[in-house]
Amino acid sequence: MCEASAYIITDGEPKLIMESVDVAVPTEEGELKLINIFGEQRFIKGAIESLSLVDHKIFIRETGAAL
Amino acid sequence: MCEASAYIITDGEPKLIMESVDVAVPTEEGELKLINIFGEQRFIKGAIESLSLVDHKIFIRETGAAL
Repeated sequence: MCEASAYIITDGEPKLIMESVDVAVPTEEGELKLINIFGEQRFIKGAIESLSLVDHKIFIRETGAAL
Repeated sequence: MCEASAYIITDGEPKLIMESVDVAVPTEEGELKLINIFGEQRFIKGAIESLSLVDHKIFIRETGAAL
């Protein structure tokens, strides 16, 4: 499977927040909804910053404090 | 391998712009640099909007006209 681990960048440091992420999609409230392959969801006040897919990594920059 | 196809959303329609994308990273000039597994690069005036990794898809929203 080709899911990835999602990291949020806090003070320049990546912190793991969810594994096995399949979908990352913005919400109308300006958050980022993460859904993993098990159907679990998480909402982050952030936006996708960068990707490294062969390494299975998604980097998210904070845009607020919804953690 | 777990690369993905990158689509840019133009007038609400996804248009394929690069296949086998491994890395997507913002540049200091405010563009998005795409690098595929063959080392080919492409610069887009855009930002990552959403992901559907099990479907191997990256969706990019336009933030300018660098195509």
